[in-house]
Amino acid sequence: MRDLQAEVNAALEDGAPALFRALSPLGRRAYFPPDIPAQGAQARGKALNGTIGQITDGRGSAVPLPQLAAALSGLSAEDRNQALLYSPIEGMPEVRKLWREWQRRHRSEDSGDSVPSSLPLVTAGLTHSLSILADLFGGEGKALAIPKPFWGNYRQTFAARTGAVVRTAPAYVDGRYNVHAIAEALDGLPDGEPAVALLNLPSNPGGYSLTAGERTEMIASLRGIAERRPFVVICDDAYAGLVFEPEIPRTSLFWDLIGLHPNLVPVKVDGATKEFSYFGGRIGFITFAAEPGSPVALALESKMKMLLRSVIGSPSASSQVVLLQALRQEGIEAEVEKVRALLETRYHALKAALAATDPRRLTVLPFNSGCFALVELPESLGLTSEQVRRHLLDHHDTGLISIEPRYLRIAHCSVDAAALPELVRRLEIGVTELAAAPVTP
Amino acid sequence: MRDLQAEVNAALEDGAPALFRALSPLGRRAYFPPDIPAQGAQARGKALNGTIGQITDGRGSAVPLPQLAAALSGLSAEDRNQALLYSPIEGMPEVRKLWREWQRRHRSEDSGDSVPSSLPLVTAGLTHSLSILADLFGGEGKALAIPKPFWGNYRQTFAARTGAVVRTAPAYVDGRYNVHAIAEALDGLPDGEPAVALLNLPSNPGGYSLTAGERTEMIASLRGIAERRPFVVICDDAYAGLVFEPEIPRTSLFWDLIGLHPNLVPVKVDGATKEFSYFGGRIGFITFAAEPGSPVALALESKMKMLLRSVIGSPSASSQVVLLQALRQEGIEAEVEKVRALLETRYHALKAALAATDPRRLTVLPFNSGCFALVELPESLGLTSEQVRRHLLDHHDTGLISIEPRYLRIAHCSVDAAALPELVRRLEIGVTELAAAPVTP
Repeated sequence: MRDLQAEVNAALEDGAPALFRALSPLGRRAYFPPDIPAQGAQARGKALNGTIGQITDGRGSAVPLPQLAAALSGLSAEDRNQALLYSPIEGMPEVRKLWREWQRRHRSEDSGDSVPSSLPLVTAGLTHSLSILADLFGGEGKALAIPKPFWGNYRQTFAARTGAVVRTAPAYVDGRYNVHAIAEALDGLPDGEPAVALLNLPSNPGGYSLTAGERTEMIASLRGIAERRPFVVICDDAYAGLVFEPEIPRTSLFWDLIGLHPNLVPVKVDGATKEFSYFGGRIGFITFAAEPGSPVALALESKMKMLLRSVIGSPSASSQVVLLQALRQEGIEAEVEKVRALLETRYHALKAALAATDPRRLTVLPFNSGCFALVELPESLGLTSEQVRRHLLDHHDTGLISIEPRYLRIAHCSVDAAALPELVRRLEIGVTELAAAPVTP
Repeated sequence: MRDLQAEVNAALEDGAPALFRALSPLGRRAYFPPDIPAQGAQARGKALNGTIGQITDGRGSAVPLPQLAAALSGLSAEDRNQALLYSPIEGMPEVRKLWREWQRRHRSEDSGDSVPSSLPLVTAGLTHSLSILADLFGGEGKALAIPKPFWGNYRQTFAARTGAVVRTAPAYVDGRYNVHAIAEALDGLPDGEPAVALLNLPSNPGGYSLTAGERTEMIASLRGIAERRPFVVICDDAYAGLVFEPEIPRTSLFWDLIGLHPNLVPVKVDGATKEFSYFGGRIGFITFAAEPGSPVALALESKMKMLLRSVIGSPSASSQVVLLQALRQEGIEAEVEKVRALLETRYHALKAALAATDPRRLTVLPFNSGCFALVELPESLGLTSEQVRRHLLDHHDTGLISIEPRYLRIAHCSVDAAALPELVRRLEIGVTELAAAPVTP
């Protein structure tokens, strides 16, 4: 067993030395042991297979309760059977293959098909992808750079669980996106010390994607960080493709970071949740910049499979099979585009409504993509976003998300376009009422 | 935020002091922050709800790709909608309520309905339940007692991930189940130091459940441990109900441990995987001995929700809705019983075949339940189980699981009853061939 662990680490030390240096203690320890799943895999196809603790008819097919089979009657018999049985720990081969093709569908238009990307590991949703990466690259004291404001769960996943230390810098400066936020966040970290960055574009809570010019600046800034340390850049592509302005590039920054610098380790995190509008399925992916089947890809898969198995066993087969129905469909991109187009109408409705607000009441931060817009309360009002949120709940029958100290996030993805002007009206009125009222606790 | 954390810990310190003392450092830190999901919950039902980053039609319904909706066409429109949208982090209320009723369906026959059990938390499968408990109660140096041999993933989930130290004692002594294994494993641990035990009955890999007499002895032994330390007993009820001998009690030990001793903290871990033959769904549960809605139950739910959200976001809504079709069905127990009866025929076929084997070749350990039987190679043969496993794969087209040094696990749950005598014949022949052959590496 020790040998397997050493082999896995040697493959990374040889083939991906910066990545190896960035591993957490748990990341170094992790490897997939020759336990039941490995032995079960070796027995696949044997005439008599008594390896796996899964109830079958004795010939590999499920023995479902009739109500469960009926619930999945929209699937072919073969798919239904797969949906009822265990998935491989790394995910179903067909899902992995088709998701990789989906990720790379625009590659030939850009930098050619030679850019390496691994067979994506299937996870139990995008957060699960992040928590596996937190286990691999986080750990006590590890520096994690995130532009602020950011999705609060990052803090739980990386810092509360693994002891990583969140370092931030403002995502917005003078009303513009700050492409140097990551570099500023890492300022003062001793040279040579590994670091991790989380880049979520289109962003939550900002709803922002980089312009072509900003993208060039951002890449240069990240390259500068990699000059000084092993540097893992996690591209959280949760909202991939949901871009609403024609001049804004739609592809993930992940592709631009591959091969940029030997110290820079790009990782792509994405999922069916938003991209395929499948929120209830909990299917996410992790992709590294390594050729499928290469020693580095296999070593990373060994580590990730151990982390996945020890935390959730295996990803949902049912959800993977449901997703497969879309992934197999010729021309699925047109269906995905319809969802994007629906959000685009809401985006324009929200943009127009916010443009008409009084800047003394609301500072509208730039947004062009994703599911959200972010507004900031001018400091001069003396209000917190939590006061405004509670006031809107209590007096205007309206729910928004407060991000302290003074941000409010509007999710246009879950509000009808026709209702967005009224939502903005209530927000502005609510702020006006509170700003005029005597201060209350 | 500090206040919330302090409140949650105070509720446990007051209402469940032994449990509080057994928490890991992460378990103490954990509480559900007033972040997006909490704010989203407060906004439920508001006329304008722009809180959650979920794509809806603006009136709370999903916007699915047509292929995903078609895959779930076996569900009612309302259920399909729920299957496509996010589940609450703690699980769907209907699933939690109905699973609790399922767990307690025999309670009135036993010790009455007054025994407290919490509303089960929904997880992404039984392993995920275990990993949440490992986060809550494991941690660097924490003693974890497990009878040996045991399911290898316990070691990954508790020890490799959290740093807990596995302590073992033989599960079988002189061909009988050893009810004192947990106490022996903890022998020498200083008094007062908290400990955790994992009790998996029916067992993997043993396929064993306690007789009524052994159960009484086991309970006394566990109570003795609780005299000396805060003591968390995790009842891994993965194979609950799969019992094949009429005189063997079928109910979980969990119920017998509730209220046994102030220091003893029983936890029930179970799931739809084996109990409802739904392997592909990944739905598990965690249940504590606390009244639903009580301060202790709410504090534990706050901690578990933080751990669940930071690792997987939320459990699969699709799988929960599929499971609901069975849970809602009047008389579902008869369908579950059919699966048990199928395995019972295999159990009897395997038992008969193993009874006819030569004890100089195979020591058959007692089994009466679950999915497996365990055999041990007599030490005198000088063979390892791994040698036999590879020989069976290479020369007899037969797959079994090797558990070092000399155990082989037979999964009768995945082999037809008619094929089991042949499987045992090949096993015995394989052992005979290897025992007669010159030693090879």
